[in-house]
Amino acid sequence: MSKVVAFGEIMLRFSTERHLRFSQAKAFTASYGGGEFNVCVSLANYGINAEFVTRLPENEIGYCAVQEMRKMNVESKSIVYGGERLGTYYLETGAGTRGSNVVYDRAHSSMATIQKGDIDWKKVLEGATWFHFSGISAAISQSAAEACLEAVQIAHELGLTISCDLNYRSKLWQYGKAPSEVMPELLKYSHVILGDIDTAYFMLGIPKVNPNYQDEKSLPALYSKLYELCPNLKTVATTLRYSVSASHQRIGGVLFDGKTIFNAAVQEVTPVIDRVGSGDAFMGGLIYGLVEYKEDKQKALDFAVAACCLKHTIAGDYNLVTLKEVENMAGGNSAGLVSR
Amino acid sequence: MSKVVAFGEIMLRFSTERHLRFSQAKAFTASYGGGEFNVCVSLANYGINAEFVTRLPENEIGYCAVQEMRKMNVESKSIVYGGERLGTYYLETGAGTRGSNVVYDRAHSSMATIQKGDIDWKKVLEGATWFHFSGISAAISQSAAEACLEAVQIAHELGLTISCDLNYRSKLWQYGKAPSEVMPELLKYSHVILGDIDTAYFMLGIPKVNPNYQDEKSLPALYSKLYELCPNLKTVATTLRYSVSASHQRIGGVLFDGKTIFNAAVQEVTPVIDRVGSGDAFMGGLIYGLVEYKEDKQKALDFAVAACCLKHTIAGDYNLVTLKEVENMAGGNSAGLVSR
Amino acid sequence: MSKVVAFGEIMLRFSTERHLRFSQAKAFTASYGGGEFNVCVSLANYGINAEFVTRLPENEIGYCAVQEMRKMNVESKSIVYGGERLGTYYLETGAGTRGSNVVYDRAHSSMATIQKGDIDWKKVLEGATWFHFSGISAAISQSAAEACLEAVQIAHELGLTISCDLNYRSKLWQYGKAPSEVMPELLKYSHVILGDIDTAYFMLGIPKVNPNYQDEKSLPALYSKLYELCPNLKTVATTLRYSVSASHQRIGGVLFDGKTIFNAAVQEVTPVIDRVGSGDAFMGGLIYGLVEYKEDKQKALDFAVAACCLKHTIAGDYNLVTLKEVENMAGGNSAGLVSR
Amino acid sequence: MSKVVAFGEIMLRFSTERHLRFSQAKAFTASYGGGEFNVCVSLANYGINAEFVTRLPENEIGYCAVQEMRKMNVESKSIVYGGERLGTYYLETGAGTRGSNVVYDRAHSSMATIQKGDIDWKKVLEGATWFHFSGISAAISQSAAEACLEAVQIAHELGLTISCDLNYRSKLWQYGKAPSEVMPELLKYSHVILGDIDTAYFMLGIPKVNPNYQDEKSLPALYSKLYELCPNLKTVATTLRYSVSASHQRIGGVLFDGKTIFNAAVQEVTPVIDRVGSGDAFMGGLIYGLVEYKEDKQKALDFAVAACCLKHTIAGDYNLVTLKEVENMAGGNSAGLVSR
Amino acid sequence: MSKVVAFGEIMLRFSTERHLRFSQAKAFTASYGGGEFNVCVSLANYGINAEFVTRLPENEIGYCAVQEMRKMNVESKSIVYGGERLGTYYLETGAGTRGSNVVYDRAHSSMATIQKGDIDWKKVLEGATWFHFSGISAAISQSAAEACLEAVQIAHELGLTISCDLNYRSKLWQYGKAPSEVMPELLKYSHVILGDIDTAYFMLGIPKVNPNYQDEKSLPALYSKLYELCPNLKTVATTLRYSVSASHQRIGGVLFDGKTIFNAAVQEVTPVIDRVGSGDAFMGGLIYGLVEYKEDKQKALDFAVAACCLKHTIAGDYNLVTLKEVENMAGGNSAGLVSR
Amino acid sequence: MSKVVAFGEIMLRFSTERHLRFSQAKAFTASYGGGEFNVCVSLANYGINAEFVTRLPENEIGYCAVQEMRKMNVESKSIVYGGERLGTYYLETGAGTRGSNVVYDRAHSSMATIQKGDIDWKKVLEGATWFHFSGISAAISQSAAEACLEAVQIAHELGLTISCDLNYRSKLWQYGKAPSEVMPELLKYSHVILGDIDTAYFMLGIPKVNPNYQDEKSLPALYSKLYELCPNLKTVATTLRYSVSASHQRIGGVLFDGKTIFNAAVQEVTPVIDRVGSGDAFMGGLIYGLVEYKEDKQKALDFAVAACCLKHTIAGDYNLVTLKEVENMAGGNSAGLVSR
Repeated sequence: MSKVVAFGEIMLRFSTERHLRFSQAKAFTASYGGGEFNVCVSLANYGINAEFVTRLPENEIGYCAVQEMRKMNVESKSIVYGGERLGTYYLETGAGTRGSNVVYDRAHSSMATIQKGDIDWKKVLEGATWFHFSGISAAISQSAAEACLEAVQIAHELGLTISCDLNYRSKLWQYGKAPSEVMPELLKYSHVILGDIDTAYFMLGIPKVNPNYQDEKSLPALYSKLYELCPNLKTVATTLRYSVSASHQRIGGVLFDGKTIFNAAVQEVTPVIDRVGSGDAFMGGLIYGLVEYKEDKQKALDFAVAACCLKHTIAGDYNLVTLKEVENMAGGNSAGLVSR
Repeated sequence: MSKVVAFGEIMLRFSTERHLRFSQAKAFTASYGGGEFNVCVSLANYGINAEFVTRLPENEIGYCAVQEMRKMNVESKSIVYGGERLGTYYLETGAGTRGSNVVYDRAHSSMATIQKGDIDWKKVLEGATWFHFSGISAAISQSAAEACLEAVQIAHELGLTISCDLNYRSKLWQYGKAPSEVMPELLKYSHVILGDIDTAYFMLGIPKVNPNYQDEKSLPALYSKLYELCPNLKTVATTLRYSVSASHQRIGGVLFDGKTIFNAAVQEVTPVIDRVGSGDAFMGGLIYGLVEYKEDKQKALDFAVAACCLKHTIAGDYNLVTLKEVENMAGGNSAGLVSR
Repeated sequence: MSKVVAFGEIMLRFSTERHLRFSQAKAFTASYGGGEFNVCVSLANYGINAEFVTRLPENEIGYCAVQEMRKMNVESKSIVYGGERLGTYYLETGAGTRGSNVVYDRAHSSMATIQKGDIDWKKVLEGATWFHFSGISAAISQSAAEACLEAVQIAHELGLTISCDLNYRSKLWQYGKAPSEVMPELLKYSHVILGDIDTAYFMLGIPKVNPNYQDEKSLPALYSKLYELCPNLKTVATTLRYSVSASHQRIGGVLFDGKTIFNAAVQEVTPVIDRVGSGDAFMGGLIYGLVEYKEDKQKALDFAVAACCLKHTIAGDYNLVTLKEVENMAGGNSAGLVSR
Repeated sequence: MSKVVAFGEIMLRFSTERHLRFSQAKAFTASYGGGEFNVCVSLANYGINAEFVTRLPENEIGYCAVQEMRKMNVESKSIVYGGERLGTYYLETGAGTRGSNVVYDRAHSSMATIQKGDIDWKKVLEGATWFHFSGISAAISQSAAEACLEAVQIAHELGLTISCDLNYRSKLWQYGKAPSEVMPELLKYSHVILGDIDTAYFMLGIPKVNPNYQDEKSLPALYSKLYELCPNLKTVATTLRYSVSASHQRIGGVLFDGKTIFNAAVQEVTPVIDRVGSGDAFMGGLIYGLVEYKEDKQKALDFAVAACCLKHTIAGDYNLVTLKEVENMAGGNSAGLVSR
Repeated sequence: MSKVVAFGEIMLRFSTERHLRFSQAKAFTASYGGGEFNVCVSLANYGINAEFVTRLPENEIGYCAVQEMRKMNVESKSIVYGGERLGTYYLETGAGTRGSNVVYDRAHSSMATIQKGDIDWKKVLEGATWFHFSGISAAISQSAAEACLEAVQIAHELGLTISCDLNYRSKLWQYGKAPSEVMPELLKYSHVILGDIDTAYFMLGIPKVNPNYQDEKSLPALYSKLYELCPNLKTVATTLRYSVSASHQRIGGVLFDGKTIFNAAVQEVTPVIDRVGSGDAFMGGLIYGLVEYKEDKQKALDFAVAACCLKHTIAGDYNLVTLKEVENMAGGNSAGLVSR
Repeated sequence: MSKVVAFGEIMLRFSTERHLRFSQAKAFTASYGGGEFNVCVSLANYGINAEFVTRLPENEIGYCAVQEMRKMNVESKSIVYGGERLGTYYLETGAGTRGSNVVYDRAHSSMATIQKGDIDWKKVLEGATWFHFSGISAAISQSAAEACLEAVQIAHELGLTISCDLNYRSKLWQYGKAPSEVMPELLKYSHVILGDIDTAYFMLGIPKVNPNYQDEKSLPALYSKLYELCPNLKTVATTLRYSVSASHQRIGGVLFDGKTIFNAAVQEVTPVIDRVGSGDAFMGGLIYGLVEYKEDKQKALDFAVAACCLKHTIAGDYNLVTLKEVENMAGGNSAGLVSR
């Protein structure tokens, strides 16, 4: 039976409601999320054993994060405690022509100050079949990047499938290293990579083939490059996102297995309740699809795209949908009928 | 002067706000509604005397339901008390590709355990001109179906106009009888029937003419069948609903008076604030139109469709609009201008 | 350095949330706004010194209005106190085919009972470069109209640029005078006028050139008339608004500087979070554009239209956006991307 | 069977929650209340037919007030429409050493501009047995005082029992007459008067017997005076209130029937959820007691005091308690046990 | 290491906020709780392995209950699914002289329709050291009582310590049996019983020794009787509760170990945030104390009383406190100092 | 005219409502506060010019803090921008025996990373008459302590009155220095010191005279010591706080002017809405009293105690009361009467 372990940061998110701007808010909705944790929630929702590993401050706010993990059926037993604070971020959800706005307050978090050796990865990964990480751990601090590499290397030694969501964030990478100095080493162990064109080129430090990051035509060239650079790569996928407005997105996806390029039909996503975490929902769907649908890559991709679309209708960071709901949408039922 | 009496169930509805999923809700918005009560509210809003008859538990929650009736100007003086509980249901409002979700908790309600004879219909219907019921009363329990038939028969004896909204719900009809064993007897007294194709065929136990329930082409054949089976039938109508997504509906309507088929222009309805009760809003508009516009069936139909469309913009089960607002929209003003 | 002084009324607004109707509301969201104050907030947000002058009741509710001004960085030092009450209004925000609804409760407000002479305009306008007023002050009472004329005349004497937003409201003008008896005198001192076709003709008391108020073809004729009647007029502008529904507007704009007619591209605005104050947002953007972009009228107009569009995404009366956000949208970036 | 008709003003009340000060509130809780209406709600809760007569503006806010009346089972059929606005008031609920704060915004309300003759009292009072008014109607405007006198005189002619709650408010009485010029004429028809010492002396224009308004010793002298001045007086009562803090009150009561002085035991009331309307709750309880317990004046007084105490635990203007709850407390059960 | 398994019902509770009455609520706060589950949460908070066993409906509302268990670190792996509904109840929190009000809507719940044999107790209790149940399972239905007896008997066979909270509820026991026909059989296997005087006598079917249930003097006689009737009894305890008002309780406790009567000091508890579940908090504290403090019965009792007192300050059914907080209060620190 | 400048940190505070524990909160109320800022708000409310100086991050959250300052009429023109984050803290408000709980998340804030020289104190203090700081600035970081000393020294050179609230927080002082290494240097310039016994001894590094920090008898000895150590000292004051429970405090105060010890009557404070900031309220009241009442030290002390008491009834960090309200309470009116 599959068991996925993800490593990364979980944050407390403060969001305004009803599209209020920060300065209008007398209260913030509190929820917990983070790229790799969100992937775990997706997998748990689909019935896959999922464990999340991170470092948390030993205070009530850290314990609240653990309660959320338990509530979402994500295993939390290997979490380590220490450091000063839980990373937080502020979110103001846009509408129409006004985009959403994120203010990070994650510097000096317990996860950012994690050290290589803090986690006993041999023990943690015992019995696991898949290890997932993202470019964010590499982006928050030197020591987190090192801790991540340690995990990846042990996962590799133990023969786990390794997946990475490149997840480039321009406001991170503040510790003095460029992504291209750090990511290639992490990616060379990866079997599955999710990333868009710009991100990929940027993180790999190779010149862009094409200036338009949404141009599907440049994907084949990118994918070839990735296969060249990452000796273990089996699958690479890309979320296609066309933003009509903050409230209206068009979502598609592409997957390459080294031989064939698969395309998923573009879906209209409107209104957008919350698009934060929709890439993580894609990643979660992709892992599920690769694990469960094995050789049917088209089905895996369609599942990932359907999961990503549904996420846009869910408030909060992670994708609170059932397996049946995603299957239903992946199967073409997207009319939003009432169930009663 | 017209006086409409409706018989059915009123429930306490618990809904999540802002498209939250059930598991995200720390609170539920409480409101009261139910198919036949919703029709009464529409009629009261349009200035028609409306009375609602049901059975309620004798506790504070039952009294709250009565307060809601009074607030909405629906006569409640003939309500009987008894039984264990007020039926409830949980509603999670969808968005975009994610449909709304209803979890019923209405079994064993005071209305489901009503018995034939609990209500003195001769007295209740004194002075009334119209009796309305729906397929829901027949669906919740054997004894409620019997109590409903008793009401229909007395209404028939007293010469009232009788209307029925077929209102098929797949999650009901759990007591061992098929709709086709129960509904024909109830419908044979009805002068006005509201129902879509599938529902009608299913409830009447006749084979489907056409597999596509939204196919307007199959309506004439259905209508002919209904006229054959229901000797008192004067008007049959159908809400046409095309679901683009949970947030975008297209609403039209068809009415047949035995001679002519009337069609209403299809309206774009987006966003959808709350589509629960939109069929009841159509029914309320239809009764109003038939009562007030008498021979102008097109105007009656247009009024019903306009009422139905407006309902989608109103939170809660019933259609909180004024006569003037519906007339305005039925008259073609649907641009949503500010009134100031 | 520019300093804009605006004169008008600030009101406490009670609005229902989540598109609830008045009768569903157990609570009203309280905010403060008013046409001329909203213009001040826009200007303060863009970095222009802005002062708002009004008359307030000397009670806690009046003080709350002053706190709001201070919070928004609008100078409040010349406000005078007296009278019985702060004007209020109730707002129910529509959706789709259901329009928003405003119920004014502003009669007998402290501003409506202001008297000519209550404000020492010579002192107030010292150091100011621009004076702004709107047709609303002229519409609420005879004495407010007189107080407004006094201000305009002193602003004229002091050589300030004077702007007027015609702002016709059919529910006002209840004190026995027609707009055409009052407005021309006020407008003859104005250098900048914002108004749509109907309003302009109505306020000037001249017969309509064309029955369709949104018909851009009739604008040149209107503009010529205005230039004829207003000897100081330098710039006249018009917001073009096509209402698809309460949730979907199309916004454009036209500006005439006596020589050239400038047009701004029409923008899709959907969803509409709150359209109240979007005309004031246009006015604020226009003043900013005329002050900062000087001879580049096209840029001024584009800025005004962008500001107006963005306002539709902001809850509350005034336009809570930064200079950078408006510039960004005026520059063509309206896809609502996430900033993170 | 008894039927009580009350005449007065109903207002929309805006209150802050959780003891917030006005300047902290982003939202106000909206509820409806007013001295005489609150009495009606109490009576309706106890099973007495109660009708409320007032004048309302013909707008959505006025209709909301009517919905509230219907919800509370208070007859609203004789209400007249007209005027500009529903009176409102703002309430900030204190705690401990900080008192509650009321800001009235009721000037120019539809009720304040009512005219003698607006209501057909002969028709309205047909079938009624009791007429209730308060000093507030006399305090808001000259024309309201006249309309009130008209009602009192017709009630007198028709032989109804007439009750008056003196209800002195220092912020009212702004129209140029002193209470002592207006109240005696109204009181001379009254059979039941509720009032404390200061109020009574002030309203009657007689010198104070004793400087301490809470001094029970001065009550006999006051009562004698009242009997002298009011030829129809049968019962006079006084709420005794000792304010420990805004959160802790001690409530007692005194009743004089011309022969005997009855005293009710003082009750500890803490915490205070909302003390507004607690005097009206006493009045409602007193009317009920006088009607139902007839000669048992002690029981009537105890019921009134119990009702008054319970009101302090209810949010909103009126006393949302059942007959059984008041009887229970009047019978000595005040320990606040859970019912389950 | 200790592991406690509890069997009972978990319900969805709908409570009004800020002491609102049911009829004032537009929303209900949703939380999950139930006597035996509440005990599990207490134990998990104190670091004891706790598992809750029940029967839930297979729908989203049932899943929400499981999420709550997981969040609170209560093992849910042995839960069985089936039946129609999750039991619910409505709670209106009183204040001062107005008591709280509970309206149960738990009839026909999945737990009430559980059958003997539905749960594989041998497997469930493997590794457990303690089994806890309460009189509520015996009170809701015949089949639940039988299922409970089955569990108790198997726990007995397996040599677990068995505890029972008598938990008498007058609104339950509707299925035709008296407590005294059912409880003795259940109690004869119990080692620990929590119950007050009235309850105990009533449930055991023996005549009352003393009419005053709070009279500590009658406890010795009761305890003797219990020891006589329950051959396995080791410890019996009683919560002493003196209700000054709904907002002010005085809480003490008594424990008898067959030899000595231990008394805990009475604590002032004011204000009361939520007293529902305070008995369960005592029970949870008692089990913890008996397990951890073993022979120090006084310490066990003091811990139980401290836990009970703290529960009154926590909203919701269960006692959300840490071990350290209870120890701190049991140690005499009850001044509510700020921790910062 | 007096002008007070305060230097310190302003934080964003996240608090749960209705006494919820952190783990129960789905939302946090956001407000802004901090010891020295709170003093400024008090002074501004009493009509004293007050300016707050701090260092803020240049992001939307930092700007929100400035808006709050402006709203409260506290001058913010000398604030400097830089650093990574606004300090935050989490607050869970206790009740009864459960104390409030503060979780600080203020490490690495923009204020903690301020450097000596960041602020041009000569310019900032021009025209000021009073400088206020507290022990918190010295406690958060070495560089903040140095920046504070710089400010104090320049204030001293410019001849300002200097006040310090010792404000000891055990969770701060993490940067490697003991208070007694840092505070004496800061205090030697101070004219006014507020502090309790323990704090004072601890901060001054002198052995305790008496073990009970609330023992008024040890105050004279402490005061003598302080006068010895602080050559500029004119006034020293102490808040006396007896905590009955988290909901009930008894507040008194002592002041020593080098000659006489003044005592204020102890006040009962119950319920406690929010005690955070009550010490700052005392400080604000004390400065006001010393400035306005000059030689009447008793009056100054009584004013400070009254302000402190009232603060306990106000939600949020700072004391939102008017001068009149404090005067009223200082004058003996603490019964919490309704103003209407």
